[in-house]
Amino acid sequence: MTSRPKTPLLDTVDTPDDLRKLKKSQLRQLSDELRAEMIDAVGTTGGHLGSGLGVVELTTAIHYVFDTPTDKLVWDVGHQCYPHKILTGRRDRIRTLRQGGGLSGFTKRTESEYDPFGAAHSSTSISAALGFAMANKMQNRPGRGIAVIGDGAMSAGMAYEAMNNAEQAGNRLVVILNDNDMSIAPPVGGLSAYLARMVSSSEYLGLRSMASKIAKKLGRRVWGGLEKAEEYARGMATGGTLFEELGFYYVGPIDGHNLDHLIPVLENVRDSEQGPVLIHVVTQKGKGYAPAENSADKYHGVAKFDVVTGEQKKSKGGPPAYQNVFGETLAKLANDDPRICAITAAMPSGTGVDKFAKAHPDKAFDVGIAEQHGVTFAAGLAAEGMRPFAAIYSTFLQRAYDQVVHDVAIQNLPVRFAIDRAGLVGADGCTHAGSFDITYLATLPNMVVMAAADEAELAHMTYTAAEYDDGPIAFRYPRGAGTGVEIPETLEKLAIGKGRVVREGTKVAILSLGARLEEAKKAADQLEAKGLSTTVADMRFAKPLDTALIEKLMRSHEVVVTVEEGAVGGLGAHVLTFASDSGLTDGGLKVRTMRLPDLFQDHDDPAKQYDEAGLNAPHIVDTVLDALRHNSAGVEEARA
Amino acid sequence: MTSRPKTPLLDTVDTPDDLRKLKKSQLRQLSDELRAEMIDAVGTTGGHLGSGLGVVELTTAIHYVFDTPTDKLVWDVGHQCYPHKILTGRRDRIRTLRQGGGLSGFTKRTESEYDPFGAAHSSTSISAALGFAMANKMQNRPGRGIAVIGDGAMSAGMAYEAMNNAEQAGNRLVVILNDNDMSIAPPVGGLSAYLARMVSSSEYLGLRSMASKIAKKLGRRVWGGLEKAEEYARGMATGGTLFEELGFYYVGPIDGHNLDHLIPVLENVRDSEQGPVLIHVVTQKGKGYAPAENSADKYHGVAKFDVVTGEQKKSKGGPPAYQNVFGETLAKLANDDPRICAITAAMPSGTGVDKFAKAHPDKAFDVGIAEQHGVTFAAGLAAEGMRPFAAIYSTFLQRAYDQVVHDVAIQNLPVRFAIDRAGLVGADGCTHAGSFDITYLATLPNMVVMAAADEAELAHMTYTAAEYDDGPIAFRYPRGAGTGVEIPETLEKLAIGKGRVVREGTKVAILSLGARLEEAKKAADQLEAKGLSTTVADMRFAKPLDTALIEKLMRSHEVVVTVEEGAVGGLGAHVLTFASDSGLTDGGLKVRTMRLPDLFQDHDDPAKQYDEAGLNAPHIVDTVLDALRHNSAGVEEARA
Repeated sequence: MTSRPKTPLLDTVDTPDDLRKLKKSQLRQLSDELRAEMIDAVGTTGGHLGSGLGVVELTTAIHYVFDTPTDKLVWDVGHQCYPHKILTGRRDRIRTLRQGGGLSGFTKRTESEYDPFGAAHSSTSISAALGFAMANKMQNRPGRGIAVIGDGAMSAGMAYEAMNNAEQAGNRLVVILNDNDMSIAPPVGGLSAYLARMVSSSEYLGLRSMASKIAKKLGRRVWGGLEKAEEYARGMATGGTLFEELGFYYVGPIDGHNLDHLIPVLENVRDSEQGPVLIHVVTQKGKGYAPAENSADKYHGVAKFDVVTGEQKKSKGGPPAYQNVFGETLAKLANDDPRICAITAAMPSGTGVDKFAKAHPDKAFDVGIAEQHGVTFAAGLAAEGMRPFAAIYSTFLQRAYDQVVHDVAIQNLPVRFAIDRAGLVGADGCTHAGSFDITYLATLPNMVVMAAADEAELAHMTYTAAEYDDGPIAFRYPRGAGTGVEIPETLEKLAIGKGRVVREGTKVAILSLGARLEEAKKAADQLEAKGLSTTVADMRFAKPLDTALIEKLMRSHEVVVTVEEGAVGGLGAHVLTFASDSGLTDGGLKVRTMRLPDLFQDHDDPAKQYDEAGLNAPHIVDTVLDALRHNSAGVEEARA
Repeated sequence: MTSRPKTPLLDTVDTPDDLRKLKKSQLRQLSDELRAEMIDAVGTTGGHLGSGLGVVELTTAIHYVFDTPTDKLVWDVGHQCYPHKILTGRRDRIRTLRQGGGLSGFTKRTESEYDPFGAAHSSTSISAALGFAMANKMQNRPGRGIAVIGDGAMSAGMAYEAMNNAEQAGNRLVVILNDNDMSIAPPVGGLSAYLARMVSSSEYLGLRSMASKIAKKLGRRVWGGLEKAEEYARGMATGGTLFEELGFYYVGPIDGHNLDHLIPVLENVRDSEQGPVLIHVVTQKGKGYAPAENSADKYHGVAKFDVVTGEQKKSKGGPPAYQNVFGETLAKLANDDPRICAITAAMPSGTGVDKFAKAHPDKAFDVGIAEQHGVTFAAGLAAEGMRPFAAIYSTFLQRAYDQVVHDVAIQNLPVRFAIDRAGLVGADGCTHAGSFDITYLATLPNMVVMAAADEAELAHMTYTAAEYDDGPIAFRYPRGAGTGVEIPETLEKLAIGKGRVVREGTKVAILSLGARLEEAKKAADQLEAKGLSTTVADMRFAKPLDTALIEKLMRSHEVVVTVEEGAVGGLGAHVLTFASDSGLTDGGLKVRTMRLPDLFQDHDDPAKQYDEAGLNAPHIVDTVLDALRHNSAGVEEARA
């Protein structure tokens, strides 16, 4: 273990109040120490590195100039908030980032008054900051809304909606566009091109030096002078910009690593009576750490690493990740089926669509952070005879729920939804958990909803979805590595709405949906050891239900337990609704539903999260034993 | 009844193929006849009038120039598609618009091959058209995607996401911006101002005449000539426009009622190898019908009316609409509570927020068609001490589902969701039905979900929500008039998670959520008449459940029926999950859930829709009797 970096100046700064006591001339050193501290911390914990490195100076400058926490600073997505956490009273816990019980990897209201708004999904910051600005305006008290948003996040419609409503906030709203020209994936779409064009224009350097001169000359003078100079520079470089069309006063671009450029401009904006202002700051992801700067993904998300060499701890080999099984299976299927195409919303590697795109570049679409568009685009493709797969994380598909309902389900169009990150996801915590998709999809008419128990099942379901042209079909699967089962060469077209019995018993029936099947089987072993003969069924489908199988098992077992990696309203609810409405349970049957608890679980190791959720084998066993202890009136009998 | 208009030329046109056989010089007459026919038809049926009148010439011109249905014409929202329906083989049914069994008021794939994509929610057209364009491109066959989208619909982020992805389609994609500067509400936001500025610029007239000259001069000549002239004109008038920044080739503005301007430009665009093109067409809502032109809302949505006078059939007095009870109650509450504010997404009168805005203009926010932004903006307001009410239709709240989850529920922020149009909604059909909100909201931790049984309950719930600061709270209520109950002067703060028994019985218990309560009470009367003593409870809350009440009723009744105006996964599912998991039903109990059926119901009179859904009093009675006929093994016994 290397020794911690020396940080004499940073050691004097616990909160932004301390920071504001420093001289401007000290901020360079402070930023350098902040960067070293952050690199060391993330080396210990793993996490998001590149984004934070890119905003070290910006974080320092914002807290130096603005009156946080009275001014509400909202970090979009939140990947980049580690330096902010170090400067806002959380340095002592910075080496617990993303660990169970430790700091969140995102901003979080419950962690600090300096986190006025939590984030993790992209492109919410301008709307939230506008809310803060207007709330304080209506209450006649101080407090701006300051949003820091990346260029990638600007591709989401939500950011545009917010900008379109920003004018009313006047100088209460400041938007800082953190333009590092690289969100998680390579930049896509017109906006990125537009930004690139702006930044690469021949006037760019001149503008930068002009911004520098303006900053130096005007210092804290009244806005008027800066306004005219800026207007001139702006008109020269860009004509009317997108942001100005939407009512913003545009300032920039500014070098986001140069404190001598940043501070005076932020001060001017702070003291201006005009607004809203959009400050265009150009930064470099991974800045100041050579291994990150030289890496293709700028160390966006890293495992623990050696600070000196930059070498990341390798994960042990093991089974392939679900996402890659999906991507590779789809690529193979597309070799024989020209109708197959794939859509990702800025998550090519996270969804495995990169594997597909490599083999079929003309059939892969990365729409940017634009799930709404992505789903309706897929609906259009499906309506015209293609077989589109919309590969979107469970939690992000929430962004396109209306499009799933209105454009896909109502029209019964065969869009295939490949839903990754189903269930609990570990270090990313509750904002990324895939908890609700079974419920919000299975309630829709026309929709078919599958869940894969392992990676072989995922391959079969990918094939089944490709071949299913009768309407929309979704299949969900977990984050991370598969179980290690072999993936058959020949894929099976699953019968729609049919489950499979994986173990036959007589007294207890466990109906499992998705990747809890392993735990269900373990539970069955333990129950057998106690003399309780146990059936385990992999239901495969939350919709349509295998009603014949359910009826058979309910008529022949004493206790029936449903298990799923989702919140209330999913498999358990559908099974109960069917059983109850068809009179199956009129005469009494002990049915128990096991699902995610009714709370947003904090980040932790996934196994521990499932333990907290009560969805591991011992909990299944306990649930069965508890049910057996109850008499038919539902009252627990004395233990034997 | 007035006689039908004379339409000799229109009588010769059944499909666009017939239209294309006409001379250009005949299109003026055809448009006039089309307009007269449409006015007469909507006079008979009621429906959306102003939007259709605004696009009579545009509809004629598009079908004349483009190769529909090979070229896929997608009407955004679809309000304006009546002239399109008349020209595409549906004239014989045009006087069945929005009637049960008749034509849909929107485009609908199952109605015609000329409706390649259904719509009703706003801002989906560019994404869908891009899907058609790319599908045909990938399949090497002809077929453009043509989207016609209003300026109001452009305020939604989804349209922006689509534009940001459009460049890849090249000349396969044509977007026609139908700029009537007035969506349902007065225009809001930066984009409208931008469009207004553009159109009202001093160069506008010159540009219009230049477009006219270009059209006349170049006729069907190659694009190159037009391109240069256009570029010149464009640069002169607008510099870089928003659309050009996003990669479109911008053409316009063009007078959308002047066929001599429209046709040549559309022909040039059709024959161009460049694209994507955005054609900016300026139209007048209500055009050509004086009563509509002179009305403030341009007869956006009308009842049946007298064609000669324009006088609409008045609805009989009767109870106030739910939306107005909400708006007026909120306005009153805000007199004493400066923290109350309200947000609508372009539906001020539909949600009753107009009533609130009249009394408290500084506390009302119309964010445009931007539900995503609206909800997160509300979250920001709530985080900073305001008491925001987001008043959004059930079906449109789907647009903001991720914001409800990620920004509101996870952070447990007290945003109040006033959910109008819950349940079935009549003539607007399945695209506007509020079917899923109970399910998609009640599955979320921290969320409180109420449903109002009548307008007095709605007033109490509005007050309850205002006073509830512990987290998010939603209350849903139907479209249309209340039941006529008196609204008490003094409002009651309801106990969270507590229902009320409205009728006491001993054998049958009906647990009702929302406005089916009337039917439940009627059913109870009928059951009593058969000697079946019946309890009726208004549950008020889908979440948290009144578990004490449920347990009490389950332990003391023979049959328990849940009734709700929502799809599977709602009240019934939550009641069953609680009962089953707590062992309450272990010993047997006949429970039945009554809810919306698992299909998207067509438009019809709401009472008939609920009849089709099986949710009226006779169905409740039948359900109870059927349950009583089943023996404890769930098998129907021989009828007595």
